[in-house]
Amino acid sequence: MPANTFGQLFRITTFGESHGTALGVTIDGCPAGLALDLEQIQNELNRRKPGQSKIVTQRKEPDEFEILSGFFEGKTTGTPIALLFRNKEQRSKDYSHIKDKYRPSHADFTWQEKFGHRDYRGGGRSSARETVARVAAGAIAKQLLALQNISVQAYVSQVGTLKLNTPYQDLDLSKTEDNPVRCPDPEMAAKMEQLIREVRKDGDTIGGITQCVIKGLPIGLGEPVFDKLHADLAKAMMSINAAKGFEYGSGFEGVLMRGSQHNDRFIQNEQGRIITKSNHSGGIQGGISNGMDVYFKVAFKAVATIMQDQQSVDKDGKEVTVSGKGRHDPCVLPRAVPIVEAMAALTIVDHLLRARGNKI
Amino acid sequence: MPANTFGQLFRITTFGESHGTALGVTIDGCPAGLALDLEQIQNELNRRKPGQSKIVTQRKEPDEFEILSGFFEGKTTGTPIALLFRNKEQRSKDYSHIKDKYRPSHADFTWQEKFGHRDYRGGGRSSARETVARVAAGAIAKQLLALQNISVQAYVSQVGTLKLNTPYQDLDLSKTEDNPVRCPDPEMAAKMEQLIREVRKDGDTIGGITQCVIKGLPIGLGEPVFDKLHADLAKAMMSINAAKGFEYGSGFEGVLMRGSQHNDRFIQNEQGRIITKSNHSGGIQGGISNGMDVYFKVAFKAVATIMQDQQSVDKDGKEVTVSGKGRHDPCVLPRAVPIVEAMAALTIVDHLLRARGNKI
Amino acid sequence: MPANTFGQLFRITTFGESHGTALGVTIDGCPAGLALDLEQIQNELNRRKPGQSKIVTQRKEPDEFEILSGFFEGKTTGTPIALLFRNKEQRSKDYSHIKDKYRPSHADFTWQEKFGHRDYRGGGRSSARETVARVAAGAIAKQLLALQNISVQAYVSQVGTLKLNTPYQDLDLSKTEDNPVRCPDPEMAAKMEQLIREVRKDGDTIGGITQCVIKGLPIGLGEPVFDKLHADLAKAMMSINAAKGFEYGSGFEGVLMRGSQHNDRFIQNEQGRIITKSNHSGGIQGGISNGMDVYFKVAFKAVATIMQDQQSVDKDGKEVTVSGKGRHDPCVLPRAVPIVEAMAALTIVDHLLRARGNKI
Amino acid sequence: MPANTFGQLFRITTFGESHGTALGVTIDGCPAGLALDLEQIQNELNRRKPGQSKIVTQRKEPDEFEILSGFFEGKTTGTPIALLFRNKEQRSKDYSHIKDKYRPSHADFTWQEKFGHRDYRGGGRSSARETVARVAAGAIAKQLLALQNISVQAYVSQVGTLKLNTPYQDLDLSKTEDNPVRCPDPEMAAKMEQLIREVRKDGDTIGGITQCVIKGLPIGLGEPVFDKLHADLAKAMMSINAAKGFEYGSGFEGVLMRGSQHNDRFIQNEQGRIITKSNHSGGIQGGISNGMDVYFKVAFKAVATIMQDQQSVDKDGKEVTVSGKGRHDPCVLPRAVPIVEAMAALTIVDHLLRARGNKI
Repeated sequence: MPANTFGQLFRITTFGESHGTALGVTIDGCPAGLALDLEQIQNELNRRKPGQSKIVTQRKEPDEFEILSGFFEGKTTGTPIALLFRNKEQRSKDYSHIKDKYRPSHADFTWQEKFGHRDYRGGGRSSARETVARVAAGAIAKQLLALQNISVQAYVSQVGTLKLNTPYQDLDLSKTEDNPVRCPDPEMAAKMEQLIREVRKDGDTIGGITQCVIKGLPIGLGEPVFDKLHADLAKAMMSINAAKGFEYGSGFEGVLMRGSQHNDRFIQNEQGRIITKSNHSGGIQGGISNGMDVYFKVAFKAVATIMQDQQSVDKDGKEVTVSGKGRHDPCVLPRAVPIVEAMAALTIVDHLLRARGNKI
Repeated sequence: MPANTFGQLFRITTFGESHGTALGVTIDGCPAGLALDLEQIQNELNRRKPGQSKIVTQRKEPDEFEILSGFFEGKTTGTPIALLFRNKEQRSKDYSHIKDKYRPSHADFTWQEKFGHRDYRGGGRSSARETVARVAAGAIAKQLLALQNISVQAYVSQVGTLKLNTPYQDLDLSKTEDNPVRCPDPEMAAKMEQLIREVRKDGDTIGGITQCVIKGLPIGLGEPVFDKLHADLAKAMMSINAAKGFEYGSGFEGVLMRGSQHNDRFIQNEQGRIITKSNHSGGIQGGISNGMDVYFKVAFKAVATIMQDQQSVDKDGKEVTVSGKGRHDPCVLPRAVPIVEAMAALTIVDHLLRARGNKI
Repeated sequence: MPANTFGQLFRITTFGESHGTALGVTIDGCPAGLALDLEQIQNELNRRKPGQSKIVTQRKEPDEFEILSGFFEGKTTGTPIALLFRNKEQRSKDYSHIKDKYRPSHADFTWQEKFGHRDYRGGGRSSARETVARVAAGAIAKQLLALQNISVQAYVSQVGTLKLNTPYQDLDLSKTEDNPVRCPDPEMAAKMEQLIREVRKDGDTIGGITQCVIKGLPIGLGEPVFDKLHADLAKAMMSINAAKGFEYGSGFEGVLMRGSQHNDRFIQNEQGRIITKSNHSGGIQGGISNGMDVYFKVAFKAVATIMQDQQSVDKDGKEVTVSGKGRHDPCVLPRAVPIVEAMAALTIVDHLLRARGNKI
Repeated sequence: MPANTFGQLFRITTFGESHGTALGVTIDGCPAGLALDLEQIQNELNRRKPGQSKIVTQRKEPDEFEILSGFFEGKTTGTPIALLFRNKEQRSKDYSHIKDKYRPSHADFTWQEKFGHRDYRGGGRSSARETVARVAAGAIAKQLLALQNISVQAYVSQVGTLKLNTPYQDLDLSKTEDNPVRCPDPEMAAKMEQLIREVRKDGDTIGGITQCVIKGLPIGLGEPVFDKLHADLAKAMMSINAAKGFEYGSGFEGVLMRGSQHNDRFIQNEQGRIITKSNHSGGIQGGISNGMDVYFKVAFKAVATIMQDQQSVDKDGKEVTVSGKGRHDPCVLPRAVPIVEAMAALTIVDHLLRARGNKI
């Protein structure tokens, strides 16, 4: 039942609880000789960290990391790279008020039933804090991808009913980081920010959608049958807390199209490369990248922790009131962006290494 | 890069090409002592097989299987169960006309680039015929689930724009097999059938959505972090040919809801069991089943093979015309139903075995 | 608990019982484009098969194989290669006399206790017949190795007390196949053959040792820490029926040496390559191949089936007599040679593919 | 190529270099609810640590560990248990003198060739210091085994030519820890100690053999075919630095016996349990434990680091002298005992969890 490992050849194993001593990640399979940019890792962590803007949780977690191994004289050595994140405030707080209560739509109940014994402090290992390890590992994956001119860019395309209909090709993705919502359209971003503020004022939370685009992929990534590139991306995305749906290329809307409309015509471009004219396939055919952009969407539900009283039960089934407390995200989307990118980068790097064995 | 294996403890490995000698599957990890019902395996295969109705491909593949191992005196022995499917018509046909052409939205191009050498006959291993192995293995998984009163039921809920809006709870799922579309609502089924006939007459194809419901799950299946139950279901579903999207519980629509609406309140039912009043969570919280129904949707695009002339290129990039030929499905949905069920059953059985190690 | 798979990137999964319908193997991860020599596969199978000489079992198993997939126009396609071996005589025989008896030093008792239900005919899956699948897969591995000028050669170096003390460097290994014992020293081979005949006449069996040499390995195969090249070779060898011990390089005798004697001095040879002057390391340092010959020994015990009456118990613990019956090997060594080679080749090919990801 | 993970269901991943920031281990798959005894972990680490006696290296490594996760209110939670070991003296020392030199029989050369870039300080990750992570994880495995009355006991049975011929049954294994050699026979222990002192005085090193006995195993551990219990034990043992050979039960000497001598007769004991009268099988038949003691031997070569000048080459192939320096073990055997036990315990626990899925 070990389940804290992701990837086959570029393989990460994460550990740690939200309010335990530390979280961390071991990356096994990173090739030797990569000149690691530690600052870039911290930059990615800063994009994920709480307190970075007014519309995310105001908790203070510096999210500084320490590199413990696999790194020598500025380069990776081919041995496991371990990164450590100390929890700063774990000791002090009192969690006895939720110890035996099952918060609605949290993992309290299922963990208690599954394991019999759990760390209830701040959600334990089911806390979103766990993603700090993913983002750091993803930052290393991104550095490997950058060597091959592969980029992974995500942004928020929907918050509640506010939906950005512009296709990603017509957006200037370099503007994604210009606003706290991480929506590259400034006007829409302003509306989304306004909505999130309102929702927070109500003590409530709201969901949304993240879009992600991967450019520069070589042809041939992804394995036929079970480990199709989009199947592994789907698993990667759905493993993120609060994810409820995944679609790539034409996605759910694609079901409305007829084959004659949906099929992507092959043509030869001016450089003599074979490309497709349209890209309903989302850059993947038969589970294998075809050299076009890979793009997909991930739906996230509203955060379960709200600042309102809710009815629930305790472990004995007795009715109790759960009160909203603490500093939480009114909307997970802005901070989901670097996490989506990290999981996508990890998936792609793994398939890059796997593809090394296709031919004699 | 081995990628023809699915599952960790109940692990299937499939092999075979559409027009090669045979396809097959090895199931490793099936516990000993299961009284296998071979007829039920054939029944599931019959639900998947071509030629079963007027709205699916009229190819003739009997899809009979032979059991080669792991089965003795009517029961499984705990050793690998191998099932074999002979291809009957593989030798005769001439495929030289598509040998070097890249059919639009097929896997011809990506396979050629990835492997350098491929079996181009009838799609080779990227053919939907590969799912015969999944359905047979899934039939065995279903028999294990039945021992624990777990059922897996899928049906077609949308074809093109024709969408069944009734929630699954209000449908009589026992009617799913009453019509060739596999939609449990007879009226909608008739409309869908009509639409598929029209699309076929146009030499075209159309997409749709399959819904699946899993009932009777114990609490505690699924692993936190990467191997969340819905993440593994997402991968399982997205590994099916033509799948474009996956959502569970409230899904993409759930992003519109606020936390106060989306949260599922815990209550104690009359039997003293803790359940949730609503089920936006789709039976999974924190990646772990909570005892409620698990339900999800899978979007399938229109089949790429159409009976119309299409422009494309050959392996040298030269423009060519690809003509529609052969007997193909105008809509993949009716035959997708048993495949979705099979992949769901395989995922659940694997997690059932994995859950045996949670506690001391 | 799936346990019928060997290898990580060149991964074989075997199935089948001695007296079931068929045995087989699926090879997943063989690169595309290998021009397979099917005859060479059959040749290896012939080296393993019963009845090939007077000193092995006289059972008649033709051991012909059928290739089912992954092979097209003379070359591998990168998809799983499935090989099938039909059992010819499985139906007829009566095994009820041993159904409930536990034969001494066989796996009857442990299988019954582990699985509760087992195929008792001819040992079921614990029969040495299972190795037919290994030898066929190993033959394909050998063909991949041959492309890189890597050879794997095993021979019998000891039968009972008859021990060949000549180091492998001083033997002409091309003579191994010249005699039925597979010992490259003709005189010793004659003595061994004589001993095996005597043992058989006594209705008894005898053990021995196989030596194996791998030449032409590139530097850098094997992974530090757990997957050391010799650790994976050890597991491969010890997974063969009747294996009792493994040693490589200086082996057990090496414990007598002092570090100053055992250390292999590095020198530069005439071609400018760094080599070691002695090779007590057995071609592996720190778990990684250093370019020198890899050599190791495997000890096999006497076959458990003897042609004598033995006392034992049945499943209820009642005392019974087990009578020797059937046609069995008086000494497993001659037929172990191709099996040892196959498992070694599979291990090396797997590490060759794994090594593709070491550096950026 | 990730290779720093051991085990399938009780899975450890280790990281860290001898002179890097820290070493550590993540244990994934430890069931929830185990009341961990942290002191016992430290005790096992103390048995492994340098400086514990006059006949081992006099380096000072306190080997204190910090538990980072997976542990709450005194019990395991079913999430990964991470243990951290800080390196204390890593910064100070100068290793430039060996940076480009290849020490005889060390892993310098093979690592450099394999990875291109390596941490040369103190052997980096190929240092025996890596076993600190194994011993700590093994200590947790032992606690799980103790709940089922399974014990794992190793001892030194040979140093150089000094060989203890008494079978383990006739030894009082509780005396193993009474002397620094870890040989339970006091007289032999004294001789061994004397020999090791002499060897050290010569600036040399010496090899030896460790014997290990596992008592209390249930029937049914180990999987047929590839993951035989002794095959996994062999891999576990051969993955320890300096290991050259492995044998179990009758081992290499068993090849001298005839089948009629070697076969273990089944009998029913007074309690009605089926046991074997002799135990040449070493407690394993067909790869599966039969309830008798499992026992095996591991051969270790002399440590490569000697306090003498040796000729070698540098990375350019130029002849250089390597001088012995630092504090090293004259004989690895005394400290190998807890490592052998740890790897055995990890192997057994993994198979205990795997066996949970054998039957319906």
